[in-house]
Amino acid sequence: MSITVVGSVAYDSIETPAGRRDHCLGGAATYFSLAASFFTDVRVIAVVGEDFGPEQECVFETHHIDTRGIEHAEGKCFCWQGSYLENLNEAKTHSTELNVFASFQPKIPDAYRDSQFLFLANIDPVLQRYVRDAMPGVKLVAGDTMNFWIEDHRPALLRVLNGLDILLINDTEARMLAGDGNLVRAARAIMALGPRVLVIKHGEYGATLFFGATDGTASKTFRAPALPLDEVVDPTGAGDSFAGGFFGYLASQPHLTPGAFRRAMFYGSVMGSFAVERFGTERLQALSRPEIDGRFNEFRELTHLD
Amino acid sequence: MSITVVGSVAYDSIETPAGRRDHCLGGAATYFSLAASFFTDVRVIAVVGEDFGPEQECVFETHHIDTRGIEHAEGKCFCWQGSYLENLNEAKTHSTELNVFASFQPKIPDAYRDSQFLFLANIDPVLQRYVRDAMPGVKLVAGDTMNFWIEDHRPALLRVLNGLDILLINDTEARMLAGDGNLVRAARAIMALGPRVLVIKHGEYGATLFFGATDGTASKTFRAPALPLDEVVDPTGAGDSFAGGFFGYLASQPHLTPGAFRRAMFYGSVMGSFAVERFGTERLQALSRPEIDGRFNEFRELTHLD
Repeated sequence: MSITVVGSVAYDSIETPAGRRDHCLGGAATYFSLAASFFTDVRVIAVVGEDFGPEQECVFETHHIDTRGIEHAEGKCFCWQGSYLENLNEAKTHSTELNVFASFQPKIPDAYRDSQFLFLANIDPVLQRYVRDAMPGVKLVAGDTMNFWIEDHRPALLRVLNGLDILLINDTEARMLAGDGNLVRAARAIMALGPRVLVIKHGEYGATLFFGATDGTASKTFRAPALPLDEVVDPTGAGDSFAGGFFGYLASQPHLTPGAFRRAMFYGSVMGSFAVERFGTERLQALSRPEIDGRFNEFRELTHLD
Repeated sequence: MSITVVGSVAYDSIETPAGRRDHCLGGAATYFSLAASFFTDVRVIAVVGEDFGPEQECVFETHHIDTRGIEHAEGKCFCWQGSYLENLNEAKTHSTELNVFASFQPKIPDAYRDSQFLFLANIDPVLQRYVRDAMPGVKLVAGDTMNFWIEDHRPALLRVLNGLDILLINDTEARMLAGDGNLVRAARAIMALGPRVLVIKHGEYGATLFFGATDGTASKTFRAPALPLDEVVDPTGAGDSFAGGFFGYLASQPHLTPGAFRRAMFYGSVMGSFAVERFGTERLQALSRPEIDGRFNEFRELTHLD
């Protein structure tokens, strides 16, 4: 079943210990779409500027990603400049130019309205809520957020959480959102705000899936590893690629069983592990489904007793 | 097969967000022995003072741990005071009184000499090397160390590493020992110093097993999770308990297959997860084998796809 995703399509300038790249195609919706496109049909809602041309369009087309919801506006694309020189786990932002994103008002093509899966990538929670309300027929809604919205836009964010089935965030964001340093207690507090499934990403240590208990019993958890890598070229987009693999796989399944969620966690980790191997979306662009399934088996080998 | 362990038997005074305990039985050899005793016979080499009485002796006896190698010296036991108020992952040491440990010279009872497994718990690497040399007939030697020895006693530590089959350390220690922030590269560098198997413990995120490649192919890795806990009462001894579960299980196996190492990683995580549930060795003292195997199954459930 198809996924509609709303989020940023952007240009990034990135410096890491492995080198630097200027003005490479990025943005949460781009990473998410590319990662999810290996599993299901993806439709994007975003805004780009006049510096988004046929070459970039082609990246989406090659992966059969529907771009009819990408609005072309006057001006330039959202631009982010950052580095990971001291710490590969946390980006240092040097500059953020919102450009066409400053006045972004998502427009949902009619052709997208039968999507059964909706992903609200990390953007202003007011826009996330707007898109969620505009697509009442979806079967499953997942979303992401970040420290900025948690700290300074909590009321709007709470309205988003209230409409989410699944939230995907990292350790720091989970602790900040719940105001609790213990991740299990934090997970419980966050699920009380709306999402019945919570994925907390631990960077190089993998990710944990928490299923909210709806029947008074203890909640269930599942841990997926990350692949031990001897070089992380560029961590940008790892979380969005995880989300794309996770949600893309779920959308491809006939039934959302606990087993499907477990495998989705592995596919999320797999897509994150590919994303960081090269700068920007380079690795995701060059990827094939057999490579993905090969790495899925590596993850099984890495964690399974038998 | 039986394990001989050399290390500290001590009294700890511990403060954590869950409360405080004064003068509770601790020390690396104590945690290790208790954890390993659920899997195999354990023999301890250590030194205690006059404040180690029948009550403490009884803790070892109850678990059928051979204490003939525990020397009783004039003076007081090794004492450690520490807290984890700001960070459960790192102890803040308030005081260390070596007491009888200051002049510790390990004495190996003849009855221990047929041990096939040797564990060198975290003590002065000069003593670790001495015990290792005094037991040339052992089949498998594992050991632990800490930042203090890595930073200030490197030449002595390198002589220990050279005689180890398995080293168990945490992330920070691995990065410090190798001088490399990337754990995969650090693992490779450390295994070049001697150990052909390396276990790096990630605290609440589990642990990774690295098998050194002896045939030129890529080294193999295995990741065990930690149990997501909603309260860590006292992290003291978690690493030693992991080592006890890991090495104890290996010693109980007829063949050291890759599968045995994988299950050993799970049993290590299981014992670590129990250790932190109460202060000091309280939880390990009260534990039963069915509880251990029950939690082993929880770990399988937590990580396995099927």
